[in-house]
Amino acid sequence: MIDPVTLAQALLRVDNVTPARGAVFDVLEAALVPLGFAVDRFVVGDAPDGPVENLLATRGTGTRHLAFAGHVDVVPPGEGWTGSPWSGEVRGGLLYGRGAVDMKGAVAAFIAAASGSDAGTLSLIITGDEEGPATYGTVALMERMAARGIVPDLCLVGEPTSTARLGDMVKIGRRGSVNIWIDVPGRQGHVAYPHLADNPIPRLIAILAEIETVMLDKGTDWFQPSNIEVTDIAVGNPAHNVIPAKASARLSIRFNDRHRGADLIARIRTIAERHAPGAVVTGKVSGEAFLTEPGALSALLSDAIIAATGITPELSTTGGTSDARFLSKLCPVVEFGLINATMHKVDEAVAVEDLLALTDIYAGVIDRALR
Amino acid sequence: MIDPVTLAQALLRVDNVTPARGAVFDVLEAALVPLGFAVDRFVVGDAPDGPVENLLATRGTGTRHLAFAGHVDVVPPGEGWTGSPWSGEVRGGLLYGRGAVDMKGAVAAFIAAASGSDAGTLSLIITGDEEGPATYGTVALMERMAARGIVPDLCLVGEPTSTARLGDMVKIGRRGSVNIWIDVPGRQGHVAYPHLADNPIPRLIAILAEIETVMLDKGTDWFQPSNIEVTDIAVGNPAHNVIPAKASARLSIRFNDRHRGADLIARIRTIAERHAPGAVVTGKVSGEAFLTEPGALSALLSDAIIAATGITPELSTTGGTSDARFLSKLCPVVEFGLINATMHKVDEAVAVEDLLALTDIYAGVIDRALR
Ligand SMILES: [Zn+2]
Ligand SMILES: [Zn+2]
Repeated sequence: MIDPVTLAQALLRVDNVTPARGAVFDVLEAALVPLGFAVDRFVVGDAPDGPVENLLATRGTGTRHLAFAGHVDVVPPGEGWTGSPWSGEVRGGLLYGRGAVDMKGAVAAFIAAASGSDAGTLSLIITGDEEGPATYGTVALMERMAARGIVPDLCLVGEPTSTARLGDMVKIGRRGSVNIWIDVPGRQGHVAYPHLADNPIPRLIAILAEIETVMLDKGTDWFQPSNIEVTDIAVGNPAHNVIPAKASARLSIRFNDRHRGADLIARIRTIAERHAPGAVVTGKVSGEAFLTEPGALSALLSDAIIAATGITPELSTTGGTSDARFLSKLCPVVEFGLINATMHKVDEAVAVEDLLALTDIYAGVIDRALR
Repeated sequence: MIDPVTLAQALLRVDNVTPARGAVFDVLEAALVPLGFAVDRFVVGDAPDGPVENLLATRGTGTRHLAFAGHVDVVPPGEGWTGSPWSGEVRGGLLYGRGAVDMKGAVAAFIAAASGSDAGTLSLIITGDEEGPATYGTVALMERMAARGIVPDLCLVGEPTSTARLGDMVKIGRRGSVNIWIDVPGRQGHVAYPHLADNPIPRLIAILAEIETVMLDKGTDWFQPSNIEVTDIAVGNPAHNVIPAKASARLSIRFNDRHRGADLIARIRTIAERHAPGAVVTGKVSGEAFLTEPGALSALLSDAIIAATGITPELSTTGGTSDARFLSKLCPVVEFGLINATMHKVDEAVAVEDLLALTDIYAGVIDRALR
């Protein structure tokens, strides 16, 4: 049996701010090969979003196939740590280090759990770029899996989903996210002669006033209502007596699985063009919404959590996006991991007790999924 | 008789971008004293809006009192002149120089006209700051006049009001102007958690949408409709996933004599506070509207124009503000002067023929007003 604390310390002692390459994957490979995993490491992509290293490890020939997905890159530590962010030291029952909860700790816990089982087929889908642009991360791993015919039945993402106590929250979906820019052209002129100019601001106001009346949905059983926020309006006119030549606004829409990003962009474009025929609407979808309807996967995860902690997890779809949005195209996905209170913060730390309990939970998931 | 071209040249050869002081007033004083004017020059005001020099000249003890008002400061010449902007040279029948039409030419024409008359009482109200902040310009001259008990019956402002041909337009009023700022406070937050934030943009949109529905008036016999322009909206939020803490807009209102600036500010404030209780609305009135209803003054000016040019002038209230907005508190005011096509532009120039015709017109006004 691998000790999750020792393995987590080995991972934490590598300074590998996103994108991760080399040493941290050496630690993983050294742990996985003796457990019987076939380890496939590959480096992909060019600057500026690459190169990125990824690792795909597979073991077993059982008919049931569980995949664990995660990342070993970390966000920059920032200033103000009590010790070194790369110390991996235990003080007062807490294991410190950048990545302790997000998410080297969970990676170590899963490998430790895998070391105590030999059932079914297990895969680890580990990227070196989840915190960065993620252009060559999980997406590249999925292409690699497709090329090699690797298709899991279930996928567990180890992101830190717990909030107050380990086990209190599981994510079964995530909202999608799209940013939209609206540019309304006009013709500059002097305010004393408005008939010679064409102020774009009234048209932008009409567009935004209609957008404010749009209710995308009332929420679903599993999602809160989709939400449109106007996050910026920019005209950039320093002159009091000048009618400006253009006016712009930016929207951020967080949407549930009733919508797709491209449809929302088209819907905003229709509104904009109705009030301002020359308006230019552009959008960028950061992620589509996904939902793994509560079922066998969430039930076995909940059972494993209850068995190890006595806590019944809430099934949630709140928060930002995660790589689960990609993996959900492959198979049912749930996310569960450590308490996220210190993630991305100074003195990021995990309770040793939680790391051991998470190992138990992951072992319970492997047992329930593959038996 | 003074030659208006020679006097205009002397004025144009002084480089005196606003505020004007010294040499250009020496030229005026040297011309006015031999004509019997009592000349009162004074310097007033501190930085940043001062000091400014002004000149008040009065002649005669007649019961009828005509005042001529104008300025001898000029806007900066800018780059690209064919000759020197201070040459005062005549080429092809045109007298060139910064201020040729706005409005050293008119000042020279009026003094030339005054040199051929000794009727009634004549005053010249000449400021060195009309093109700048005008804090210590015509307003200071009016205080000086009040202190000395000088009250004209009629006032002619020599701004360049003609458009295509000398005599085609007289101004009998001007619209007022007010700038208004609306600041709507909110509470910053993350777009994924809108319930923890308070986006000020929807409230600003609601305010502006209502303002867009406001029709201040339909115009009057002498004024076009008052007009509200939203000239800027500023949020200044660079982050795509952040709900901003504040949103602001700026309005410019050009209004006719149905309104007063302070009332318009109050009206906008009422709308803003209805949609956004914490909104802060501030306003700055650049000038109130004024109108000298067509009557004896405009009739005698029109007669003088027709007599000299054969053109019947249009009585207009269009364009920006002028110092006539201050003088209108003293007595009936009309504005008439040279063709404004080159004012504030490169190669500003007046036709020598027009300068002579304007002298005839001003002489006709003096004759008709004071006989
Ligand atoms: Zn993470
Ligand atoms: Zn002027």
